[in-house]
Amino acid sequence: MKTVTITASKSYDVIVAPGIRNQISAYLSAISPKSTAVIVSDSNVWPLYGADMECNLRASGITTIHYVLPAGEASKNANTYLSILNFLAENHITRSDILIALGGGVVGDITGFAAATYLRGIPYVQVPTSLLAMVDSSVGGKTAIDLPSGKNLVGAFYQPSLVLCDTQMLDSLPDEIFRDGCGEVIKYGVLYDRELFMHLLDRGIQFDRETVISRCIELKRNVVADDEFDRGPRQMLNLGHTIGHGIELHSNFMISHGKAVALGMVIVSKAGSRLSICSQEARNSIMEAVKKFGLPTRTSINAHALYEAMLVDKKRSGNTINLIIPEEIGRCAICPTQIDNLKSFIEAGL
Amino acid sequence: MKTVTITASKSYDVIVAPGIRNQISAYLSAISPKSTAVIVSDSNVWPLYGADMECNLRASGITTIHYVLPAGEASKNANTYLSILNFLAENHITRSDILIALGGGVVGDITGFAAATYLRGIPYVQVPTSLLAMVDSSVGGKTAIDLPSGKNLVGAFYQPSLVLCDTQMLDSLPDEIFRDGCGEVIKYGVLYDRELFMHLLDRGIQFDRETVISRCIELKRNVVADDEFDRGPRQMLNLGHTIGHGIELHSNFMISHGKAVALGMVIVSKAGSRLSICSQEARNSIMEAVKKFGLPTRTSINAHALYEAMLVDKKRSGNTINLIIPEEIGRCAICPTQIDNLKSFIEAGL
Repeated sequence: MKTVTITASKSYDVIVAPGIRNQISAYLSAISPKSTAVIVSDSNVWPLYGADMECNLRASGITTIHYVLPAGEASKNANTYLSILNFLAENHITRSDILIALGGGVVGDITGFAAATYLRGIPYVQVPTSLLAMVDSSVGGKTAIDLPSGKNLVGAFYQPSLVLCDTQMLDSLPDEIFRDGCGEVIKYGVLYDRELFMHLLDRGIQFDRETVISRCIELKRNVVADDEFDRGPRQMLNLGHTIGHGIELHSNFMISHGKAVALGMVIVSKAGSRLSICSQEARNSIMEAVKKFGLPTRTSINAHALYEAMLVDKKRSGNTINLIIPEEIGRCAICPTQIDNLKSFIEAGL
Repeated sequence: MKTVTITASKSYDVIVAPGIRNQISAYLSAISPKSTAVIVSDSNVWPLYGADMECNLRASGITTIHYVLPAGEASKNANTYLSILNFLAENHITRSDILIALGGGVVGDITGFAAATYLRGIPYVQVPTSLLAMVDSSVGGKTAIDLPSGKNLVGAFYQPSLVLCDTQMLDSLPDEIFRDGCGEVIKYGVLYDRELFMHLLDRGIQFDRETVISRCIELKRNVVADDEFDRGPRQMLNLGHTIGHGIELHSNFMISHGKAVALGMVIVSKAGSRLSICSQEARNSIMEAVKKFGLPTRTSINAHALYEAMLVDKKRSGNTINLIIPEEIGRCAICPTQIDNLKSFIEAGL
């Protein structure tokens, strides 16, 4: 069992261990005794773990209710968000009750945003069930929903009370979804940790889960602690994301997040290499790692379409957008880029 | 001109002066040069002040766009909120742009919530046009929308960058709306300031606007500074509100906020007097002041209906609700009340 303590505007623990989900009652009783627990989950995850979790909580005398949304990114919208809020209000949920996000990134993001805004904030616990949600969404307090114009355009910075990462739950993930999460895992290696990157390049999807996941969480913790509200160094975490979000949006979310991020990393490292920002070795290693994990290195989307999709990105500041470009494995740079130069940059990376 | 500096998680000024709206360009240029200003207003206020404000801003080289919502509490809903968010996204508004809430409490609350959550937070300026919005909504960072189940059930704590209270704009308010705002003004006297209360009892609606408004803002500032996230002494500000919200909800918002708050104060002071918490003098003075301002002292809603409406109140914590009850003019008490005893309490106050 590994515990990473996150100190943001509020301090909380992320616990990484196989089977840890079965101890949720003990943790919840410590956080919020006598509260009603509202489990929010999706149509994939609920049938696997929902009944067990409710039994577990009820056996400890905790009242539970649940809300199950259709699985998939398409659910991360304003309608689902409002439906959750109305469900909470109709069940007279108060500030002393607690939400549990049982699922992947979609469930975590939308449940977090509902928790952040229902009654202007009630507590919530995350039980991420996908690799992506464990390493990425569970740290940093970014909650969000999508708008028709773009991904994550609405949300709040809001910290959970606890995160339980049960590595056993990864066994139930379809292979493709597991690989998808590896996009973010590789990202942490490229950004900050050559040793982590080499372990991944060596072992592929057979990497040591407890160590790698807790290491990614620590790395994210360190950067978020310095920049909770995403104005400075935290921008680094957008490696692969600025272009990746454009890819997701343009594909109408048919290309998954991890694939889009992996592709985004390949594109910025290729373009960065042409501009002599990214070393040849870094560019080649990134390409090799992405391939080893079965993630895409090419896209049929053209530069103009990607450019258009990127214009609504919330990281844009006036006429400049900050691109994160690898220099070496373990070291990246923030490169402010004029919107006018963006299309030719993308072209160089495709 | 009076300036009250608010120090919350972020520091900002509330400026109270006749005609101050005409200086908005200078203030805006200081806060956010080169940004696009998005004016959000309603169908009552926009025709009076919208064109002037746009001219004023454009003359200073600030780009403006505007969104006008139908006037009235019924607009403070999820649909309007989403419509504003989509308007911002479609116009490619970024974190370096700024929202201006030009209107009363509804415009301020919904614009503030949009600002709090669009791109996880962009700056906004309030130009409150009603007395209620000046004394109440402009300090404290409480932003919100209503759900079908109740008022202000969704929102965020989010501070504006600046508040301009132009006392001249109060001249355009219908008499009834102005009196409505007086409900909150009387509340500040009852809570904290006997001198303020006596000035109001003496002068009625002819009170000294600049002094009274800035005094109410100072009083609210002092309590909010100690308790930004509404967990402790800030509960005091709910004097008249816990019952008032129930009245508003039950009347389907046909009874306005200030009237409901005034009525709520009368009900808690009457019930409090029967329980020997509220002095006879306080109870009688509150009744007299409420009458002097032409606000209601009686309702036809019965205790059971009010009780039901109050159950969804977000101030409820499990089976207890904190009622604020005047002891003397200028001093009130927080009284935790069992839900089971609530109905008989309301009955005693009707």
